[in-house]
Amino acid sequence: MDERRVSDIGEFGLIARLDAALPDEARRSTALELGIGDDAAIWNPSPGASVVITTDSLVEEIHFRLDWTDWESLGHKALAVNVSDLAAMGSVPKLAVVTLGLRGSERIVDLEALYTGIGDVARRYGLVIAGGDIVRSPFGLALHITALGELQGAKRLSRGGARPGDIIGVTGTLGASAAGMQLLANNAGLRSAATADLLVQAHLRPEPRVPLGQVLREHGATSAMDLSDGLMGDLPKILAASNASAEIDLRAIPVAAAVRALFPEQWLQFATRGGEDYELLFTVPEDGWASVHEALTVAGGQVHTVGRILPADGATGITVIGLDGVAREELPGAFDHFAPGD
Amino acid sequence: MDERRVSDIGEFGLIARLDAALPDEARRSTALELGIGDDAAIWNPSPGASVVITTDSLVEEIHFRLDWTDWESLGHKALAVNVSDLAAMGSVPKLAVVTLGLRGSERIVDLEALYTGIGDVARRYGLVIAGGDIVRSPFGLALHITALGELQGAKRLSRGGARPGDIIGVTGTLGASAAGMQLLANNAGLRSAATADLLVQAHLRPEPRVPLGQVLREHGATSAMDLSDGLMGDLPKILAASNASAEIDLRAIPVAAAVRALFPEQWLQFATRGGEDYELLFTVPEDGWASVHEALTVAGGQVHTVGRILPADGATGITVIGLDGVAREELPGAFDHFAPGD
Repeated sequence: MDERRVSDIGEFGLIARLDAALPDEARRSTALELGIGDDAAIWNPSPGASVVITTDSLVEEIHFRLDWTDWESLGHKALAVNVSDLAAMGSVPKLAVVTLGLRGSERIVDLEALYTGIGDVARRYGLVIAGGDIVRSPFGLALHITALGELQGAKRLSRGGARPGDIIGVTGTLGASAAGMQLLANNAGLRSAATADLLVQAHLRPEPRVPLGQVLREHGATSAMDLSDGLMGDLPKILAASNASAEIDLRAIPVAAAVRALFPEQWLQFATRGGEDYELLFTVPEDGWASVHEALTVAGGQVHTVGRILPADGATGITVIGLDGVAREELPGAFDHFAPGD
Repeated sequence: MDERRVSDIGEFGLIARLDAALPDEARRSTALELGIGDDAAIWNPSPGASVVITTDSLVEEIHFRLDWTDWESLGHKALAVNVSDLAAMGSVPKLAVVTLGLRGSERIVDLEALYTGIGDVARRYGLVIAGGDIVRSPFGLALHITALGELQGAKRLSRGGARPGDIIGVTGTLGASAAGMQLLANNAGLRSAATADLLVQAHLRPEPRVPLGQVLREHGATSAMDLSDGLMGDLPKILAASNASAEIDLRAIPVAAAVRALFPEQWLQFATRGGEDYELLFTVPEDGWASVHEALTVAGGQVHTVGRILPADGATGITVIGLDGVAREELPGAFDHFAPGD
C-alpha cells in the first residue's frame, strides 16, 4: 500500500496524480481548449463565445492574518487575485461566485466591509457577484472565489507560446508586495510613513492588470501569466509550457525606490522571489516590442524588459545576469505549499 | 457600532446584508437573468448561449465525517450536490472546478480515491474537471466545487414560477438519506444488511436527477429545485419565490419501505425534514401533469404527487394534511447553519 502523503510529493506532484485519477473524458486536457496548469481554463459553450474560468482561495493563517489586514482589503485581495488570472489570459472579467467559510462569530459589519472590498473590485473591473455559498468553517475564515471572463475573437494568451528570441517583459514594479508583508511582520505596517504605507497597500490591495492583459492579447504577446509566486517561481512555468529556457538580467528588474531604500539587503530577493505582486509576466517577439510597449503605455501601464527567451537546449533553466554583470545558472522552482521539508 | 455576529442573524439574514453591501452594478439581481436565492445563476455570454453557474462546499465535521464516509463516496457526493443544482435548473452539466483544502497529511491514495469518485460522477453526467486550486487547510479537509451547465433555447426552470392550482411533485423517495445518516450515527452503517446499506448509500452517494430536470424544463414544469434541506425546508423557498402557499398531503409522500421498517418512529420526520435527498421538487400545471408524468417515467424516473399550490392569501405557509387526514397549518423554515440558538 502506498503510504505517501501530500507533504511527501508536494502540490505539483499531487495535481499530476489527481489528474491521472480522472477518466479520460473528464480531464480538461482532452476536453477543453486549454490544458492543465495554466492560469485558467477556456471553455467554448457555443461557436464564437469563449469562457475563461479560474478559481483561487484565501485561507486564514495560510494566506492572510486578520491582525495584518482590514476586512475591506481582504475582500479586495480575494477577488483581485482571481481577476488577475483572468487578466493574464487577456479576457474580459464577467462574473464571480464567492464562498465564505465562517466561524459564525464574525461581526456582520466586518463581513459587510469584506463585501465592500469585493464590490469595489467587481465594479472597477466590470464583474457581477453571481452568488455563492456560505458554509461553517469552525477553525478559521476562508474565501473561495471562482471567476469567469469572456474572450472575443480567436486570439489566445496562455503560458505556452513563448519562442526563442522573444523579449520577456513585466508590468509595474516587483517586490513591493513582499516588502509590504515584511513591514507588517515587523509590526511596522501601520506606521504613518507614506512610502511604507504604499508597500503595505501593494501587499493588501493588489491591482489586477486587466486592461494590460487585453492589450497584450490584442498586440500579439506570445505568452503571459500573472506573478503570484515571484519572477523566479513563475517564469519556469512559462518555460515549461513553452519548452524554452531564458536569460534574465537582474539589473533590468524594475524595483520601486521605496523597496530599495527600506530593504537595502533584501530588495532583490523580494523582487525575484517575493511573490504576490500580481503584475503580468509576458513575452513578445522582438519586432513587436515597440508596438506592444506603446500600447501598454497608452493603456496606463508601466512596462520593462527583463530578459529574453532562449532555445530549450535540453533544459528549461534560467541564466541570470547578476548585478555584477556576471551570468550564472539559476535553479528554478515555484513555491510549493506542501513541498517536502517545507 | 453594530456588534451583531453571524450567529445572531443567521445565514439568510447575512446573505441579504452582504448583497446590499455590493454596488448596484455588481449585484446579480440587476445584472443577471436570475436573481439571488435560486439554485444557480444564469449568465448569457452571447445570444443563444446561457450558462448556469452554481457552487457548493463540503467541510469536514460540518458536512461529512471521515469515519462515516470512504474517500470515493466523498468525491462522489461533493460533485453530485453541485450537479444536483444544475439538474434543478434543467441544464446540461458541462464542467466543474475543484478546490481542495488539505492538511497536507492526507495519503495520496486516499485523494486519488476522492478523485475517482469525482471522476465517476463527472463521466456519468458529462462534466469535465476544468482544474481548480489546492490550498492548505490546517484544521480539516474541505472541498469547494463550482459547476457550470448549459441551457439551450429560451425555456427556463427556477423556483419562481409556481402558480395556484399547480400540482406539486417529487422524484424518487424521501428520507432515505437521513435514515442512512442515522444508521451511520448509530454505528450501524457498515453492517451487511442490504436494506441498511441501501440507505447508507443514499446518504453517501446521492444521484443528481440530471435527465429528469431536463425533462421537467422541456415539458413545462413551472418551478423546480433540488431537495437538500428537506421538503418542509425547501418548499417554502419555492413558495416565497412564487408568492404562493401550498397544501401537502403527508399520506402521499413517497418513502422507501426500508425507511419505514427500520425507523417506525422517525420515518415521517426523515421524509419531511431530513434533507440531503437531492431529489427534485417541482410544480406542474394540472392539465400538464399526465404528459410530464409519462415523460419522467420514460426517462427512468419515479415521480409522485405530494400536494398542490394555493394562492398566497397573505401568507406563504403550508397546510399539511396529516396521516390522520386532518389538515393543520405548518410553520415552514429551512435549516440555517448559523441560526440564532442553533
